Amino acid sequence: MFELRLVQGSLLKKVLESIKDLVNDANFDCSSTGFSLQAMDSSHVALVALLLRSEGFEHYRCDRNVTMGMNLANMAKMLKCAGNDDIVTIKADDGTDTVTFMFESPSQDKISDFEMKLMDIDSEHLGIPEAEYESILRMPSAEFARICKDLSSIGDTVVISVTKEGVRFSTRGDIGAANIVCRQNTTVDKPHEATIIEMQEPVTLTFALRYMNSFAKATPLSEQVTISLSSDLPVVVEYKVAEMGHIRFYLAPKIEEEEEAAEPAPVQTKSKETRSKKENKPKVETAHVEAMREEEEASKPKEEYLLLEGLKDEECKLQVKPKEERQA
Amino acid sequence: MFELRLVQGSLLKKVLESIKDLVNDANFDCSSTGFSLQAMDSSHVALVALLLRSEGFEHYRCDRNVTMGMNLANMAKMLKCAGNDDIVTIKADDGTDTVTFMFESPSQDKISDFEMKLMDIDSEHLGIPEAEYESILRMPSAEFARICKDLSSIGDTVVISVTKEGVRFSTRGDIGAANIVCRQNTTVDKPHEATIIEMQEPVTLTFALRYMNSFAKATPLSEQVTISLSSDLPVVVEYKVAEMGHIRFYLAPKIEEEEEAAEPAPVQTKSKETRSKKENKPKVETAHVEAMREEEEASKPKEEYLLLEGLKDEECKLQVKPKEERQA
Amino acid sequence: MFELRLVQGSLLKKVLESIKDLVNDANFDCSSTGFSLQAMDSSHVALVALLLRSEGFEHYRCDRNVTMGMNLANMAKMLKCAGNDDIVTIKADDGTDTVTFMFESPSQDKISDFEMKLMDIDSEHLGIPEAEYESILRMPSAEFARICKDLSSIGDTVVISVTKEGVRFSTRGDIGAANIVCRQNTTVDKPHEATIIEMQEPVTLTFALRYMNSFAKATPLSEQVTISLSSDLPVVVEYKVAEMGHIRFYLAPKIEEEEEAAEPAPVQTKSKETRSKKENKPKVETAHVEAMREEEEASKPKEEYLLLEGLKDEECKLQVKPKEERQA
Repeated sequence: MFELRLVQGSLLKKVLESIKDLVNDANFDCSSTGFSLQAMDSSHVALVALLLRSEGFEHYRCDRNVTMGMNLANMAKMLKCAGNDDIVTIKADDGTDTVTFMFESPSQDKISDFEMKLMDIDSEHLGIPEAEYESILRMPSAEFARICKDLSSIGDTVVISVTKEGVRFSTRGDIGAANIVCRQNTTVDKPHEATIIEMQEPVTLTFALRYMNSFAKATPLSEQVTISLSSDLPVVVEYKVAEMGHIRFYLAPKIEEEEEAAEPAPVQTKSKETRSKKENKPKVETAHVEAMREEEEASKPKEEYLLLEGLKDEECKLQVKPKEERQA
Repeated sequence: MFELRLVQGSLLKKVLESIKDLVNDANFDCSSTGFSLQAMDSSHVALVALLLRSEGFEHYRCDRNVTMGMNLANMAKMLKCAGNDDIVTIKADDGTDTVTFMFESPSQDKISDFEMKLMDIDSEHLGIPEAEYESILRMPSAEFARICKDLSSIGDTVVISVTKEGVRFSTRGDIGAANIVCRQNTTVDKPHEATIIEMQEPVTLTFALRYMNSFAKATPLSEQVTISLSSDLPVVVEYKVAEMGHIRFYLAPKIEEEEEAAEPAPVQTKSKETRSKKENKPKVETAHVEAMREEEEASKPKEEYLLLEGLKDEECKLQVKPKEERQA
Repeated sequence: MFELRLVQGSLLKKVLESIKDLVNDANFDCSSTGFSLQAMDSSHVALVALLLRSEGFEHYRCDRNVTMGMNLANMAKMLKCAGNDDIVTIKADDGTDTVTFMFESPSQDKISDFEMKLMDIDSEHLGIPEAEYESILRMPSAEFARICKDLSSIGDTVVISVTKEGVRFSTRGDIGAANIVCRQNTTVDKPHEATIIEMQEPVTLTFALRYMNSFAKATPLSEQVTISLSSDLPVVVEYKVAEMGHIRFYLAPKIEEEEEAAEPAPVQTKSKETRSKKENKPKVETAHVEAMREEEEASKPKEEYLLLEGLKDEECKLQVKPKEERQA
């Protein structure tokens, strides 16, 4: 049997609102340590990882590890029926193929339960190692959301350049070009208004704005966002979920060609070792194009490779655990 | 000549907003006792009855009974032009085929008059007797509206079950099932937050959610809604209009089959007397299906019969008064 | 080199929002006296004139007269990226074909610059002489916007009649007729709530509501609107832009036929002198129809003539200055 109870139920509503447009179906992994999810977006370009630690819940019981496959749009529909002050309980009995969401109003005068069928979703779990990042940027999440939205009215991609003084977000499109510079600012009255740059090395990376805008739907979860950047790694856009966990979005950079910075550039889809061998391949495919190409030939392994390309050495391997094993 | 004047003119705006999507054209009946309307929705499944008593108006003059046929969408368009604090006057001179809506701003600096052509609408007036109901439920209108909206994201029908302890609203759909239980609660600080159940007998009835959602558009009129239920009667969903009247919505229940509660069930469209005679009719038609079927063969008399089926004995007869008589 | 700096940058955002739907592309004229624009709407029926005086800016530098052709929708997109409290700078270097918009947050922590390509727009500059108007009406801009919107739900045109006591806005449509009367009111507590009529002669004129609604998009710029009316002149609908300038909309009246006031009436497209000569022309064309007719034969000179028809005597001539001359 699995059961969790969260007094601040609105957190779960916000979590679902922030990922339901990016991912259709996903497996939630329930273990003694917490309630988590890892899933790629439907075009296999971005990855979302959610973790809610067991100690963050008012009640948490997980007799054995369970994987619950859910349609996130349907789950979000049900959670939307919870009041913002409701206590939310998620329950799954052993041997059933349903999950129950229970909502209790603060006064206990209204109690709702919603039952949803679980799905059998074929997914692989990627091991994402903790990495050292060249630059880590902390800023108000609303500011980041606004910048992504504003730049989207001009172009399709954003170039993020971090230096000690600040971070520059740039784009270019048919109607013109835009640069937005945010300066480091640690002396604000309210900590959540700070912009803090921890830089080991300056870094300049290019990303698709449509994914950044999708990640920014998590803005209501947290007043600050943390963006971790390294030239060889996918960017991590992280929102804390209260004191109990986080939601992290991973996105591979587009590799910029020096002569046309700020324009959609082909992504290097091979790892360092193999890159040299295929240097004379006539046509370099871009992540962007691949994502757009209706996935007609987008075979999953290649995409996962792309996403995690650059993870260092031993850690770099795809730690794919077949579903059966994990449930054991 | 007919003239009424209402200082709280926003009430009329709200009345129109609550019925204009349910009913296209309707006759307003003006008599010395008040300003009223009775009309069936365009698919002849629901009935709305409005009463605004003459003593509720600041000024009310009705020399003789008048029936004014109006297109409610157009009437609503005109009333929308009234400010929320405006005084509204409705005027119709004898021998004209127009009605005038006059709006005065509180400061008297802005005075508007809107003139609309009256229509000749062929309608029959149903006598709706006061009945004893097995269960009467009073609850916050916003809560009821929220429940109907929430359940609509899961299913098409709602099963309402009343017991002494509370009321349960249930539905079932493709993505799962939902139950919402509201407990009796009479000890709240604010009377309009109370949930009060007057139960003679427990009752369980099924209704189409789309009509309930339509009725809930009257929510801005009143903080409480009263829902009167009996197994053999149409439900009555009533909103008070200040101290001067009410708007009541009637809807026939779908008759549930015991083995598949909470699913759309066929409605018994015959009265008790005739039911037995036709028991071997091969295909039972449902109110729901009839409503959907583009009204191609929906003959009015049958539908009215359906709606009032179950009204007791003598009272059950359709008290159709031809229009001419009423105007005499 | 041209550069202006405006601390209250939101004014520029509001200016663009108020004209971008009326005009697609337009030339901004920058001179030592100020930053101005004059353009006809795409159907050549209305004219908009913007003036922001140089002394209204915190910084204003204009080495020589410059004309900058811009796509207003794109310019509005860029200005939308400015925060409401941002300081806005507009800059154009000599010899470049771009303009730069710079936005500084009040704390100087965020600085954005947006670069847009300038366009070469073929336009003629009309000299609009100051005229004496028979009636000048000042009223709250929100009231005027509300009236235009309300009347649009009933009809297509508005008849504005000014007398000493007040102003009447009337319309008529398929569903009925409407009259809204606003009384002169100079004794309000707040000056911006006043309705003031300066009348030399009563005047009654008819206008297309869709243009009035378009002009009313400037409502956020100013709490008062000034409407100047004369029977032989285009109406002027003016909104002040802080203390630094104004935006004026000009629209030719539809000439009413006495017997059917308040109905769309043909516009007299000829000047007084030529009117008599062509009286037996079989089909009188209306400005409204012309505007609708996909501009297939709408030749500009005729339309400008229409717009300025009635300007008195010497002043009436089209003071078309070729672009090259103005830039000299």
